[in-house]
Amino acid sequence: MVIVGGGFGGLNAARSLRRADVDITLVDKRNFHLFQPLLYQVATGGLSPANIASPIRGILRRQKNISVVLGDVVAVNPVTNTIEIHSNEPGENEPQTEFRPFDWLIVAAGATHSYFGHDDWERLAPGLKTIEDATRIRGRVFAAFEAAEQEQDLERRKELMTFVIVGGGPTGVELAGAIAELARQTLKHDFRNINPPDARIVIVDGQERMLASFTPHLSQRAEASLTRLGIELRTNTKVTAIHENCVELLTGDESARIMTRTVLWAAGVAAVPLGRTLADATGVDVDRGGRVPVQSDLSIKGFPGIFVIGDLARCLTPSGSPMPGVAPVAIQQGKYVGRLISRLLAGKPPIGAFLFRDEGSLATIGRSAAVADLGRLKFSGLFAWLLWLLIHIMSIAQFQNRMLVLFQWAWSYVTFNRSARLITESYEASEPGKKTNPKQSNEPPT
Amino acid sequence: MVIVGGGFGGLNAARSLRRADVDITLVDKRNFHLFQPLLYQVATGGLSPANIASPIRGILRRQKNISVVLGDVVAVNPVTNTIEIHSNEPGENEPQTEFRPFDWLIVAAGATHSYFGHDDWERLAPGLKTIEDATRIRGRVFAAFEAAEQEQDLERRKELMTFVIVGGGPTGVELAGAIAELARQTLKHDFRNINPPDARIVIVDGQERMLASFTPHLSQRAEASLTRLGIELRTNTKVTAIHENCVELLTGDESARIMTRTVLWAAGVAAVPLGRTLADATGVDVDRGGRVPVQSDLSIKGFPGIFVIGDLARCLTPSGSPMPGVAPVAIQQGKYVGRLISRLLAGKPPIGAFLFRDEGSLATIGRSAAVADLGRLKFSGLFAWLLWLLIHIMSIAQFQNRMLVLFQWAWSYVTFNRSARLITESYEASEPGKKTNPKQSNEPPT
Repeated sequence: MVIVGGGFGGLNAARSLRRADVDITLVDKRNFHLFQPLLYQVATGGLSPANIASPIRGILRRQKNISVVLGDVVAVNPVTNTIEIHSNEPGENEPQTEFRPFDWLIVAAGATHSYFGHDDWERLAPGLKTIEDATRIRGRVFAAFEAAEQEQDLERRKELMTFVIVGGGPTGVELAGAIAELARQTLKHDFRNINPPDARIVIVDGQERMLASFTPHLSQRAEASLTRLGIELRTNTKVTAIHENCVELLTGDESARIMTRTVLWAAGVAAVPLGRTLADATGVDVDRGGRVPVQSDLSIKGFPGIFVIGDLARCLTPSGSPMPGVAPVAIQQGKYVGRLISRLLAGKPPIGAFLFRDEGSLATIGRSAAVADLGRLKFSGLFAWLLWLLIHIMSIAQFQNRMLVLFQWAWSYVTFNRSARLITESYEASEPGKKTNPKQSNEPPT
Repeated sequence: MVIVGGGFGGLNAARSLRRADVDITLVDKRNFHLFQPLLYQVATGGLSPANIASPIRGILRRQKNISVVLGDVVAVNPVTNTIEIHSNEPGENEPQTEFRPFDWLIVAAGATHSYFGHDDWERLAPGLKTIEDATRIRGRVFAAFEAAEQEQDLERRKELMTFVIVGGGPTGVELAGAIAELARQTLKHDFRNINPPDARIVIVDGQERMLASFTPHLSQRAEASLTRLGIELRTNTKVTAIHENCVELLTGDESARIMTRTVLWAAGVAAVPLGRTLADATGVDVDRGGRVPVQSDLSIKGFPGIFVIGDLARCLTPSGSPMPGVAPVAIQQGKYVGRLISRLLAGKPPIGAFLFRDEGSLATIGRSAAVADLGRLKFSGLFAWLLWLLIHIMSIAQFQNRMLVLFQWAWSYVTFNRSARLITESYEASEPGKKTNPKQSNEPPT
């Protein structure tokens, strides 16, 4: 059998099949599993990429019924039961194509950001889904402070010290909180011409409150914490245009513009293109977010051996609303499908429909502040933050014994140190028309 | 006054001027100081970039007479006493040019790799000088194992599992030792189709022994350690050509070829181009390595206010041989110039000529093995390795309290864990003709 994707869904499916008598191939385009909920920490210099990325081979090393393949799954043929994998080989110019048969298939290829049809915004307002996105945003944020330090023109300096985050969900709120801390604490004494705490940080969201997926009361608490950090909140506001030095907004009928050189995208998510390919091949229709509709056992209608899980799946709750694209859903779906297939392989009867057990939501707003919505229990403040910390440490640690890394992380989080403040090449590479550094110019244009 | 470069030389000059009554500007193109001696650890997944890179602003935060400028010094005018700085500003396409006056100037801009006129080799055989170089090499090494796992053809699989390191100095030896450990230990159980310990690792060097700057006895010990790790040593051997899938060698009159997809360059070093610009402007001649000749007080002849230190300077020992391009020389030169200028500023008489106090050399060969040459004391083995560990930990720690990071490092070094085994974008970006990933293809060509 084949699992596509080594994220929360794919990895949990793989692990729950560890005792099944089956040869599993796990295909991912990256060689590591990424702990996405902490990606914003990399984007703001608090953690290094390797702290939240574990090699998939390392995680699955002891599971002898799995082999890992590094490659990009570009197509699924549900008639011949094969997938098409493209992979690169050092020293070869063309990607190698391989067709691999499957009896069971679990597709857990995840999501990417969506610019709602404005793909040209991607260059101006990077999103936060991959390690490279995170190091790129990190480079942009720190480069903006560097440029402000050298800028003589006061207006332009203000533009450089203005950061606009589009999207007031957990990612946007956590990112804004981390940038605020960076400006107000970490960088406080680092500059001579500018005063980093003066940085202006704005969150723009189309809905009427931040963290709209939480209860109104918790949103209120979150908004209060954000305001305390000096973050401006623009609710009911849409982005209508993004330019090199400003972003145009629309609140109701009123348009406005914020002069800024750094716009970060934490708004839309869309399933990866493989979703549409798979839907076309199996005769189903993707939803607006590009997700593949699945049945209550997470298989595609008419294809009992093909399952879709995680951000790529459109799975309905008993009340008929689609499940959110969050890690707990993917984890539980992965475990469910793994268990289901194990039973079927062992000749046992299938289990009932997949039911998402919502253990609640958490979001941090900077240091020592968070909101928690655990069903009946809703609270905010230091205790919510400690819970958030505990859960995240536990979740990472389940894959590898990296307590030491986590001590470092907890330590640098509790103090104000952010040691990973590097501006690296991937930042420059994404800036068109920029002077390339001498090393790059030695290389032939690629 | 102006200091160009935030490496070992520039930073030590800055710090020894901390009590001087002078306004100092330190210009560097990167926002961090890089601890280059451990770069090979990043290249082999043992450390994260941020573990060996400290933000320059953070290091100098408390030194109020310094301001840090992020920019590229492209020219020095010794007549008008100005330097020309290019810097990028987010949202601007053209680099900004600034002319900045100086009374005193310390140029410590360092070195880059040299391909001895074969600049086309750079793409095929990346060198190891920057953080990006290290993540690129890391990507190549891990991608080679990944591709070997998927390769059916046994000859090609052998090519993919062959690693050739050009240069048998400390960098080459340390890199080879780390790759050997990676293959023999870290990755041992990670693959299903290949046996990583079978990887072939070859060091090629033009001289008659490894570590030619050490004594013959220590070279012998090092060679014995390398051989124990299963590394092939090809001494008296020159590289005559590098291709996508092989490297051509010449040993005496005998030519040979090694089939490989991964060639790493640890051979030549050359001063950065600013050296030649500076030499032309001051009427001196750079040496073959592009270094600027300096007088015994490290100033350029005829320009008592312009000093050159570190890898960029050609400074002769009393016996007339040029000082080596190693960190201890740069550190001592930085301190010397700082002290000299402090005295001159205070109206005190100058100090005598710069004398390099050689505290010895150390090189590691994989886990628990090293050679140490401390003048009269020469030894190898576990004790040399512990000394190496201690000195490196002390040297990093002098800049920042990062004992916790170092615990992590020491821990993962003593165990066989290498957690930073990430293949990231910069690896792919350096491969011409490769399929770009979907994210990149959304961006306009840059």
